[in-house]
Formats: sequence, structure tokens, C-alpha cells
Amino acid sequence: MPIDKRHPREIRADIRSGKISGHTSGMGEGFVQANLAVLPREQAYDFLLFCQRNPRPCPLIEVTDVGSPEPVGVAPGADLRTDIPRYRIYKDGALADEVTDVTPYWRDDLVAFLLGCSFTFEWALLEAGIDLWHVKHGKNVAMWPTSVECRPAGAFHGPMVVSMRPIPAGQLSKAVTASARFPNAHGAPVHIGDPKAIGIDDITQPRWGDAQHFSPGDVPVFWACGVTPQAVALKSKPPFMITHSPGSMFITDVPNASLAAF
Amino acid sequence: MPIDKRHPREIRADIRSGKISGHTSGMGEGFVQANLAVLPREQAYDFLLFCQRNPRPCPLIEVTDVGSPEPVGVAPGADLRTDIPRYRIYKDGALADEVTDVTPYWRDDLVAFLLGCSFTFEWALLEAGIDLWHVKHGKNVAMWPTSVECRPAGAFHGPMVVSMRPIPAGQLSKAVTASARFPNAHGAPVHIGDPKAIGIDDITQPRWGDAQHFSPGDVPVFWACGVTPQAVALKSKPPFMITHSPGSMFITDVPNASLAAF
Repeated sequence: MPIDKRHPREIRADIRSGKISGHTSGMGEGFVQANLAVLPREQAYDFLLFCQRNPRPCPLIEVTDVGSPEPVGVAPGADLRTDIPRYRIYKDGALADEVTDVTPYWRDDLVAFLLGCSFTFEWALLEAGIDLWHVKHGKNVAMWPTSVECRPAGAFHGPMVVSMRPIPAGQLSKAVTASARFPNAHGAPVHIGDPKAIGIDDITQPRWGDAQHFSPGDVPVFWACGVTPQAVALKSKPPFMITHSPGSMFITDVPNASLAAF
Repeated sequence: MPIDKRHPREIRADIRSGKISGHTSGMGEGFVQANLAVLPREQAYDFLLFCQRNPRPCPLIEVTDVGSPEPVGVAPGADLRTDIPRYRIYKDGALADEVTDVTPYWRDDLVAFLLGCSFTFEWALLEAGIDLWHVKHGKNVAMWPTSVECRPAGAFHGPMVVSMRPIPAGQLSKAVTASARFPNAHGAPVHIGDPKAIGIDDITQPRWGDAQHFSPGDVPVFWACGVTPQAVALKSKPPFMITHSPGSMFITDVPNASLAAF
């Protein structure tokens, strides 16, 4: 995937006009990308509370005003109805449509949530000199639901989903400190080592994404995953919900580095 | 004030039974104390969103389920109706009562918010070897509303309130790093130096609390203050609201050190 180094504003303009409709990996290099979840105001309180109670899998970086598609905090002037390459529409928890523009679906009672994503802490790991096998080989990470239950909030409950990356034993400490600087992008790992301790029986068989390659001395390291909030929300079968399509994220105007807690 | 080194559970039992009814400063040494704001579910979404958008003045450490007075995340078994020494009851934004037990006022639609407080980062400053004049002399900090507007959320809007402590110039850097480790207790300073830059005309005349003493070389350092969310909520004149009385905080089971982001 060639790196698109233009400012996110220019990339979003191309997405809005339909020139770009695929994955956003490698676009807006150095800027925070975000997961999207849109829910009616009726479900928004429980979802907001769920995120507040489970900040590792659900790191909120923006919540729009009711009815507004503009994420003024992280990308003023952007329009969340058109500026993401591809969206999924869910009705009663079931996939109903996949579109490149959700303007026809927009309603005055909708609230858009943007959640930090792993691209930011992967950027921090790479900057810290940690090679990531899946990045080098153009694969996806490996993901599983775990035996770790999120703290429920109203209608929303379910297991935490994690993503796994093999890390050389000698770089474990660096992987923790580098990612911990970004609590708004899942932060430090939630587990290091034995997969069975968090309910993962077979490290070679991910539930989602690609199996990872372990070199001798690599240790499996697990981070909370942004799939969690979507999975949890859909499990409660909300009457209406919009999400980004996997890999088609919202590109904000926030530089990765400025998201660092330190 | 003598230090009460018992576990918070034992101190809360004395508060619940009425043996303790004053300030909580110096109690449950080393444990996180929290500000309380209780609102009806009708206002809770806007308040939760306001806190999410303004984490420096409004660091949420717990939100109870609707109708439940038990802060299961930070003090399982505690009862927020009885375990704070003194409460204030507000109706339509005006003080209506001050009591030591809010059980008669409790309703099934109430949500309790606990917000981190400055005691935690002051503990971190003291541990880091930074003397605090107001602690040494048994005074309150100095507080002002500023010209910095919070990001509004629904009905809630207003200026950020700050607290100020004089810090020797040679310890400024240490004061930033020591407090920054505690984002859930207001975190790093929001401003260092010139008070006029944030709309404070006279550093010797605090709006609330006590004037501070400056030794030669001391610089005024401003932290976001937990008075902000209460002031903002009351400004919107909610039909009903409960808060702790100033200085009478909720003592959690969470050690200060475990609240550190690093």
C-alpha cells in the first residue's frame, strides 16, 4: 500500500467526492485514525457509559452533538456522513446495507462516536524500533474474543476483544511503555504471554484477521481491540446503528504524537 | 488535622454511623478521594458527555448504574447516600438543604458521578519533594473561574475553574511530570505563569479559598479544578442535584498510586 502523505483534509475531500473508497491504511501518515459508531440518542447514554467504564477497548476521542455529523473536536469542517470510504448500516443488530455515503440514512437523533484505533499505537511501536510482522507482510492482526468480561452499562455487555502481535522477549518492556503513552488508542497491552489465561485456546487460529508468524523468542502480546464496542453494541440489537466498514477508518486532523499522554 | 491511617472501609463505616461528619482531608491516607455529583437520568447524558469532553476539570472515576448508590468500580459495598460526611441538595440550581444522609432524597432515576480530586496530585507533588504552602499552613488552595471556556455539552456550558499553587521555578518541571501521571485527578497543570493570560486579574484575590503566599522565585501554577463540573451543572439549573459539601469528599478503596497512568 503506497503511503499517502497529504494532509487529512485533502484525503477526506477525495473520499467525499468518491475518488477514494477503499482501506485507509497508510493514508494521512502520522495522523490519528478512528473507528466510527453511530447510534440514536436513545441508546447513546448507555454506549457513552460503556465506553467510560471500558476505556482500554473503547477509547473515546470524540462524541458529536445530537444530530450533528461534524466532529468539531478532532476534524472541524469534516462530515462523518461522507468522509469515510465505506460504511455499514445495521438494523436490529443485523447488517442491512454497505454504502459509501450515509447522508440518506442520517437522522436528527443520531450521535456519532469516534474511538481511537490500533494504528496509533502501532505507529508508536514502529517508531520505537519494534518490527511488526503483519505490517511488514501486509497482513491483518489476529483477533479473538476473550474470557474477560467488559464492565456492563445498561443494555451493553459482552467480552473484551483483543488483537495479538508477536513481540521479541527482549522488546516486551519497550512495547509496553511505547503503547502505554497512548491511552486514547488502547494504551498498554491488557495481557502478555499465555493465551489460555484470557480464554484463547489456539493462538494459531484467530477468530478474525490473519494468523501471525512467531519467530523463536517471540511472545504473544494482547491489546484491547476496537472491535469490542461494535460487537457489544450489535449484540444488544439496537434498532439502528452505523459503523465504518472494517479497515475504512475516519482520518482525523490530530497528529498521533499529540495524542500521547506523555 | 491528625492523619487517619485506617482503611477507607473503616472510615466510611464511621461516617455512615455519624461518628465522623467533617472534612475528609488527612483521612484514608494514600487513598483516592472523590467529588460527588448526583443528577437525574434526564440530565445524566449531557453531564457524562460534558465530562468526556472536558477531562482535565472533570476526570470521571466512577458512574453508578441508574438508581444504584453503590460505586462498585471504586468501593464495592459502599453506599453513596450515607458514606460522605456532608451533602448539599440543590433544587433548580439553588441550595435547598445541607444534610449528613441523603437516603430520604434518593430516587430510582438518580445517577451518581464520582470525579477525581486534587488531593491525589497534591499527594504526588509532596511525594516528589515539592512543598505546598497551603498544606503546610492548613489553608485551602486559591481558586478562580478563568477566561477559558469548557467545551459545552447539551445544557452544560461555562468557564473552567482552576486552583493555583505557588511552585519554586526550579521545581516547575517536576511539578508537571509528577501531576501528569494522574490524568484521573486533573493531571498536568493547564497553565504556568502569567495569571492574566487565563483571565485572572489579581493573583492575591482568589474568588474561592485562601490567598497563597509567594516566596521569592515562586511561579503561579494552575490546575483544572473539580469545582468546574458542579459550577457548570448548577448554572444550567437542573431540577434536582446532590453534591458533597466542600471538603467532605468520598473516600474510595483505590490507592492513589494505582491511579497513575504510568
